[in-house]
Amino acid sequence: MDFARHLWLSCNNYRSVQLSKEVRVMPSHSAKERELGSTFLPRFDAKGLISAIAADSVSGAILMLAFMDAEALAKTRETGLAHFHSRSRGKLWLKGETSGNFLHVEDIRVDCDQDALLLLVRPEGPACHTGASSCFYRSLRGDSLVRNDS
Amino acid sequence: MDFARHLWLSCNNYRSVQLSKEVRVMPSHSAKERELGSTFLPRFDAKGLISAIAADSVSGAILMLAFMDAEALAKTRETGLAHFHSRSRGKLWLKGETSGNFLHVEDIRVDCDQDALLLLVRPEGPACHTGASSCFYRSLRGDSLVRNDS
Repeated sequence: MDFARHLWLSCNNYRSVQLSKEVRVMPSHSAKERELGSTFLPRFDAKGLISAIAADSVSGAILMLAFMDAEALAKTRETGLAHFHSRSRGKLWLKGETSGNFLHVEDIRVDCDQDALLLLVRPEGPACHTGASSCFYRSLRGDSLVRNDS
Repeated sequence: MDFARHLWLSCNNYRSVQLSKEVRVMPSHSAKERELGSTFLPRFDAKGLISAIAADSVSGAILMLAFMDAEALAKTRETGLAHFHSRSRGKLWLKGETSGNFLHVEDIRVDCDQDALLLLVRPEGPACHTGASSCFYRSLRGDSLVRNDS
Protein backbone atom coordinates (compact mmCIF):
# COMPACT_ATOMS: atom_id res chain seq x y z
CA MET A 1 0.00 0.00 0.00
CA ASP A 2 2.84 2.37 0.82
CA PHE A 3 4.53 1.38 -2.40
CA ALA A 4 1.34 2.07 -4.37
CA ARG A 5 1.02 5.48 -2.67
CA HIS A 6 4.67 6.25 -3.42
CA LEU A 7 4.14 5.27 -7.05
CA TRP A 8 1.03 7.43 -7.29
CA LEU A 9 2.80 10.45 -5.75
CA SER A 10 5.89 9.98 -7.96
CA CYS A 11 3.67 9.76 -10.96
CA ASN A 12 1.93 13.00 -10.01
CA ASN A 13 5.26 14.69 -9.28
CA TYR A 14 6.51 13.61 -12.70
CA ARG A 15 3.40 15.00 -14.37
CA SER A 16 3.70 18.26 -12.48
CA VAL A 17 7.39 18.58 -13.45
CA GLN A 18 6.45 17.88 -17.06
CA LEU A 19 3.66 20.45 -16.94
CA SER A 20 5.89 23.11 -15.39
CA LYS A 21 8.56 22.37 -18.01
CA GLU A 22 5.97 22.86 -20.73
CA VAL A 23 4.92 26.14 -19.18
CA ARG A 24 8.57 27.26 -19.01
CA VAL A 25 9.34 26.08 -22.52
CA MET A 26 6.22 27.62 -24.11
CA PRO A 27 7.45 31.23 -24.28
CA SER A 28 10.74 30.38 -26.02
CA HIS A 29 9.00 28.08 -28.53
CA SER A 30 6.50 30.82 -29.12
CA ALA A 31 9.25 33.48 -29.42
CA LYS A 32 11.09 31.35 -32.02
CA GLU A 33 7.90 30.77 -33.98
CA ARG A 34 7.12 34.49 -33.75
CA GLU A 35 10.61 35.47 -34.97
CA LEU A 36 11.31 32.90 -37.66
CA GLY A 37 8.05 31.13 -38.40
CA SER A 38 5.24 31.64 -40.84
CA THR A 39 2.50 32.29 -38.28
CA PHE A 40 1.21 35.84 -38.05
CA LEU A 41 1.26 36.62 -34.31
CA PRO A 42 1.11 40.42 -34.04
CA ARG A 43 2.11 41.72 -30.63
CA PHE A 44 -0.18 44.47 -29.45
CA ASP A 45 1.11 46.48 -26.47
CA ALA A 46 -0.62 46.98 -23.11
CA LYS A 47 -2.93 49.52 -24.76
CA GLY A 48 -3.80 47.07 -27.56
CA LEU A 49 -1.74 48.94 -30.16
CA ILE A 50 0.98 48.04 -32.67
CA SER A 51 3.19 50.54 -34.55
CA ALA A 52 2.57 50.75 -38.30
CA ILE A 53 4.89 52.51 -40.74
CA ALA A 54 3.47 53.46 -44.14
CA ALA A 55 5.91 53.70 -47.05
CA ASP A 56 5.33 54.40 -50.74
CA SER A 57 5.44 51.07 -52.59
CA VAL A 58 7.01 52.68 -55.68
CA SER A 59 9.41 55.37 -54.41
CA GLY A 60 10.08 53.71 -51.03
CA ALA A 61 9.56 57.08 -49.30
CA ILE A 62 8.54 56.74 -45.67
CA LEU A 63 5.24 58.56 -45.39
CA MET A 64 4.03 58.29 -41.80
CA LEU A 65 3.97 56.31 -38.60
CA ALA A 66 0.73 55.58 -36.76
CA PHE A 67 -0.81 52.90 -34.55
CA MET A 68 -3.25 50.10 -35.21
CA ASP A 69 -5.42 48.14 -32.83
CA ALA A 70 -6.85 44.75 -33.79
CA GLU A 71 -9.91 46.41 -35.33
CA ALA A 72 -7.82 48.75 -37.53
CA LEU A 73 -5.64 45.86 -38.67
CA ALA A 74 -8.70 43.75 -39.52
CA LYS A 75 -10.32 46.64 -41.45
CA THR A 76 -7.07 47.27 -43.34
CA ARG A 77 -6.83 43.62 -44.36
CA GLU A 78 -10.51 43.49 -45.27
CA THR A 79 -10.69 46.68 -47.36
CA GLY A 80 -7.13 47.19 -48.63
CA LEU A 81 -7.24 50.75 -47.30
CA ALA A 82 -5.01 51.76 -44.38
CA HIS A 83 -6.95 52.13 -41.14
CA PHE A 84 -5.34 53.20 -37.88
CA HIS A 85 -6.45 53.79 -34.33
CA SER A 86 -6.51 57.49 -33.53
CA ARG A 87 -5.04 57.86 -30.06
CA SER A 88 -6.25 61.47 -29.74
CA ARG A 89 -9.83 60.63 -30.75
CA GLY A 90 -9.77 57.15 -29.27
CA LYS A 91 -11.41 55.52 -32.29
CA LEU A 92 -10.96 53.82 -35.64
CA TRP A 93 -9.48 56.13 -38.26
CA LEU A 94 -9.71 55.44 -41.98
CA LYS A 95 -6.74 57.39 -43.35
CA GLY A 96 -8.17 59.79 -45.94
CA GLU A 97 -11.74 59.69 -44.60
CA THR A 98 -11.89 63.52 -44.59
CA SER A 99 -9.10 64.47 -47.04
CA GLY A 100 -9.71 61.77 -49.62
CA ASN A 101 -6.01 60.92 -49.44
CA PHE A 102 -6.44 57.20 -48.92
CA LEU A 103 -3.52 54.80 -48.70
CA HIS A 104 -4.03 51.67 -50.81
CA VAL A 105 -2.16 48.84 -49.10
CA GLU A 106 -0.20 46.60 -51.46
CA ASP A 107 1.89 44.68 -48.93
CA ILE A 108 1.90 44.24 -45.15
CA ARG A 109 5.29 43.36 -43.65
CA VAL A 110 6.03 42.44 -40.06
CA ASP A 111 9.24 42.77 -38.12
CA CYS A 112 11.20 40.03 -36.35
CA ASP A 113 9.41 40.16 -32.99
CA GLN A 114 6.09 41.09 -34.61
CA ASP A 115 5.58 44.31 -32.67
CA ALA A 116 5.78 46.57 -35.72
CA LEU A 117 4.17 46.54 -39.16
CA LEU A 118 5.28 48.10 -42.43
CA LEU A 119 2.59 48.92 -44.96
CA LEU A 120 3.71 49.37 -48.55
CA VAL A 121 1.10 51.68 -50.01
CA ARG A 122 -0.04 53.60 -53.05
CA PRO A 123 -1.06 57.03 -51.72
CA GLU A 124 -3.92 58.91 -53.42
CA GLY A 125 -2.44 62.26 -52.35
CA PRO A 126 -0.18 63.85 -49.73
CA ALA A 127 0.07 61.56 -46.71
CA CYS A 128 0.54 64.43 -44.26
CA HIS A 129 -2.33 66.65 -43.11
CA THR A 130 -0.01 69.66 -43.62
CA GLY A 131 0.00 68.97 -47.37
CA ALA A 132 3.50 67.51 -47.44
CA SER A 133 3.84 64.21 -49.29
CA SER A 134 5.49 62.67 -46.20
CA CYS A 135 5.08 63.55 -42.53
CA PHE A 136 8.89 63.43 -42.20
CA TYR A 137 9.43 66.71 -44.09
CA ARG A 138 11.92 68.25 -41.66
CA SER A 139 15.50 67.30 -40.81
CA LEU A 140 17.46 68.22 -37.73
CA ARG A 141 20.40 70.56 -38.45
CA GLY A 142 22.20 71.47 -35.24
CA ASP A 143 19.33 72.33 -32.91
CA SER A 144 16.95 73.50 -35.64
CA LEU A 145 14.61 71.83 -38.10
CA VAL A 146 14.86 72.54 -41.82
CA ARG A 147 12.54 71.35 -44.57
CA ASN A 148 13.91 68.53 -46.70
CA ASP A 149 11.15 68.46 -49.33
CA SER A 150 11.67 71.79 -51.10
CA MET B 1 -17.14 106.31 -6.81
CA ASP B 2 -19.48 103.81 -8.44
CA PHE B 3 -18.06 104.76 -11.80
CA ALA B 4 -14.48 104.26 -10.52
CA ARG B 5 -15.45 100.85 -9.09
CA HIS B 6 -17.12 99.88 -12.36
CA LEU B 7 -14.02 100.96 -14.28
CA TRP B 8 -11.76 98.95 -11.94
CA LEU B 9 -13.96 95.83 -12.23
CA SER B 10 -14.21 96.17 -16.02
CA CYS B 11 -10.48 96.55 -16.22
CA ASN B 12 -9.98 93.41 -14.15
CA ASN B 13 -12.53 91.51 -16.21
CA TYR B 14 -10.71 92.58 -19.36
CA ARG B 15 -7.39 91.40 -17.93
CA SER B 16 -8.91 88.11 -16.90
CA VAL B 17 -10.42 87.62 -20.37
CA GLN B 18 -7.07 88.45 -21.92
CA LEU B 19 -5.28 86.02 -19.59
CA SER B 20 -7.76 83.23 -20.27
CA LYS B 21 -7.46 83.88 -24.02
CA GLU B 22 -3.69 83.58 -23.73
CA VAL B 23 -4.08 80.31 -21.85
CA ARG B 24 -6.46 79.02 -24.49
CA VAL B 25 -4.30 80.22 -27.36
CA MET B 26 -1.02 78.84 -25.96
CA PRO B 27 -1.53 75.16 -26.89
CA SER B 28 -2.48 75.92 -30.50
CA HIS B 29 0.51 78.27 -30.92
CA SER B 30 2.70 75.53 -29.54
CA ALA B 31 1.06 72.90 -31.77
CA LYS B 32 1.56 75.14 -34.83
CA GLU B 33 5.20 75.74 -33.93
CA ARG B 34 5.66 72.00 -33.37
CA GLU B 35 4.06 71.13 -36.72
CA LEU B 36 5.40 73.80 -39.02
CA GLY B 37 8.21 75.57 -37.19
CA SER B 38 11.95 75.11 -36.98
CA THR B 39 12.12 74.31 -33.26
CA PHE B 40 12.94 70.72 -32.36
CA LEU B 41 10.31 69.78 -29.75
CA PRO B 42 10.32 65.95 -29.63
CA ARG B 43 7.24 64.54 -27.93
CA PHE B 44 8.10 61.68 -25.63
CA ASP B 45 5.15 59.57 -24.49
CA ALA B 46 4.05 58.88 -20.89
CA LYS B 47 6.91 56.38 -20.59
CA GLY B 48 9.44 58.93 -21.85
CA LEU B 49 9.81 57.22 -25.25
CA ILE B 50 9.60 58.28 -28.89
CA SER B 51 9.38 55.91 -31.90
CA ALA B 52 12.44 55.86 -34.16
CA ILE B 53 12.50 54.24 -37.59
CA ALA B 54 15.91 53.43 -39.08
CA ALA B 55 16.20 53.37 -42.88
CA ASP B 56 19.20 52.83 -45.14
CA SER B 57 20.35 56.25 -46.39
CA VAL B 58 21.41 54.81 -49.77
CA SER B 59 18.85 52.11 -50.65
CA GLY B 60 15.99 53.63 -48.63
CA ALA B 61 15.21 50.17 -47.19
CA ILE B 62 13.41 50.33 -43.87
CA LEU B 63 15.61 48.42 -41.44
CA MET B 64 13.97 48.50 -38.02
CA LEU B 65 11.73 50.34 -35.59
CA ALA B 66 12.75 50.93 -31.99
CA PHE B 67 12.27 53.47 -29.22
CA MET B 68 14.43 56.26 -27.85
CA ASP B 69 14.29 58.06 -24.56
CA ALA B 70 15.92 61.48 -24.09
CA GLU B 71 19.23 59.83 -23.14
CA ALA B 72 19.30 57.62 -26.26
CA LEU B 73 18.48 60.61 -28.48
CA ALA B 74 21.22 62.70 -26.85
CA LYS B 75 23.78 59.87 -27.24
CA THR B 76 22.78 59.38 -30.88
CA ARG B 77 23.25 63.07 -31.63
CA GLU B 78 26.53 63.18 -29.70
CA THR B 79 28.17 60.09 -31.22
CA GLY B 80 26.51 59.71 -34.63
CA LEU B 81 25.74 56.08 -33.76
CA ALA B 82 22.12 54.98 -33.26
CA HIS B 83 21.26 54.42 -29.60
CA PHE B 84 17.86 53.24 -28.45
CA HIS B 85 16.17 52.47 -25.17
CA SER B 86 15.74 48.74 -24.72
CA ARG B 87 12.27 48.24 -23.28
CA SER B 88 12.97 44.60 -22.38
CA ARG B 89 16.23 45.41 -20.56
CA GLY B 90 15.09 48.83 -19.37
CA LYS B 91 18.33 50.56 -20.33
CA LEU B 92 20.33 52.41 -22.95
CA TRP B 93 21.14 50.25 -25.97
CA LEU B 94 23.88 51.11 -28.44
CA LYS B 95 22.74 49.28 -31.58
CA GLY B 96 25.62 46.98 -32.54
CA GLU B 97 27.22 46.93 -29.09
CA THR B 98 27.38 43.11 -29.16
CA SER B 99 27.11 42.33 -32.91
CA GLY B 100 29.32 45.15 -34.20
CA ASN B 101 26.52 46.04 -36.62
CA PHE B 102 26.41 49.73 -35.76
CA LEU B 103 24.11 52.17 -37.54
CA HIS B 104 25.89 55.39 -38.55
CA VAL B 105 23.32 58.16 -38.49
CA GLU B 106 23.51 60.55 -41.43
CA ASP B 107 20.22 62.39 -40.99
CA ILE B 108 17.56 62.66 -38.30
CA ARG B 109 14.09 63.53 -39.54
CA VAL B 110 11.03 64.31 -37.45
CA ASP B 111 7.37 63.96 -38.32
CA CYS B 112 4.68 66.63 -38.29
CA ASP B 113 3.62 66.33 -34.65
CA GLN B 114 7.14 65.41 -33.53
CA ASP B 115 6.22 62.09 -31.93
CA ALA B 116 8.26 59.97 -34.35
CA LEU B 117 11.81 60.12 -35.69
CA LEU B 118 13.31 58.75 -38.88
CA LEU B 119 17.03 57.99 -38.85
CA LEU B 120 18.73 57.72 -42.23
CA VAL B 121 21.66 55.43 -41.54
CA ARG B 122 24.64 53.63 -43.02
CA PRO B 123 24.49 50.12 -41.52
CA GLU B 124 27.75 48.27 -40.83
CA GLY B 125 26.01 44.90 -41.24
CA PRO B 126 22.61 43.24 -41.02
CA ALA B 127 20.27 45.39 -38.92
CA CYS B 128 18.28 42.43 -37.64
CA HIS B 129 19.56 40.10 -34.89
CA THR B 130 18.31 37.16 -37.02
CA GLY B 131 20.92 38.02 -39.67
CA ALA B 132 18.44 39.55 -42.11
CA SER B 133 19.43 42.94 -43.50
CA SER B 134 16.06 44.37 -42.38
CA CYS B 135 13.82 43.31 -39.51
CA PHE B 136 10.86 43.49 -41.92
CA TYR B 137 11.84 40.32 -43.80
CA ARG B 138 8.40 38.71 -43.86
CA SER B 139 5.23 39.68 -45.71
CA LEU B 140 1.68 38.66 -44.93
CA ARG B 141 0.13 36.41 -47.59
CA GLY B 142 -3.37 35.40 -46.59
CA ASP B 143 -2.94 34.37 -42.97
CA SER B 144 0.69 33.27 -43.31
CA LEU B 145 4.05 35.01 -43.37
CA VAL B 146 6.48 34.50 -46.23
CA ARG B 147 10.04 35.77 -46.54
CA ASN B 148 10.46 38.70 -48.89
CA ASP B 149 14.28 38.83 -48.85
CA SER B 150 15.20 35.59 -50.61
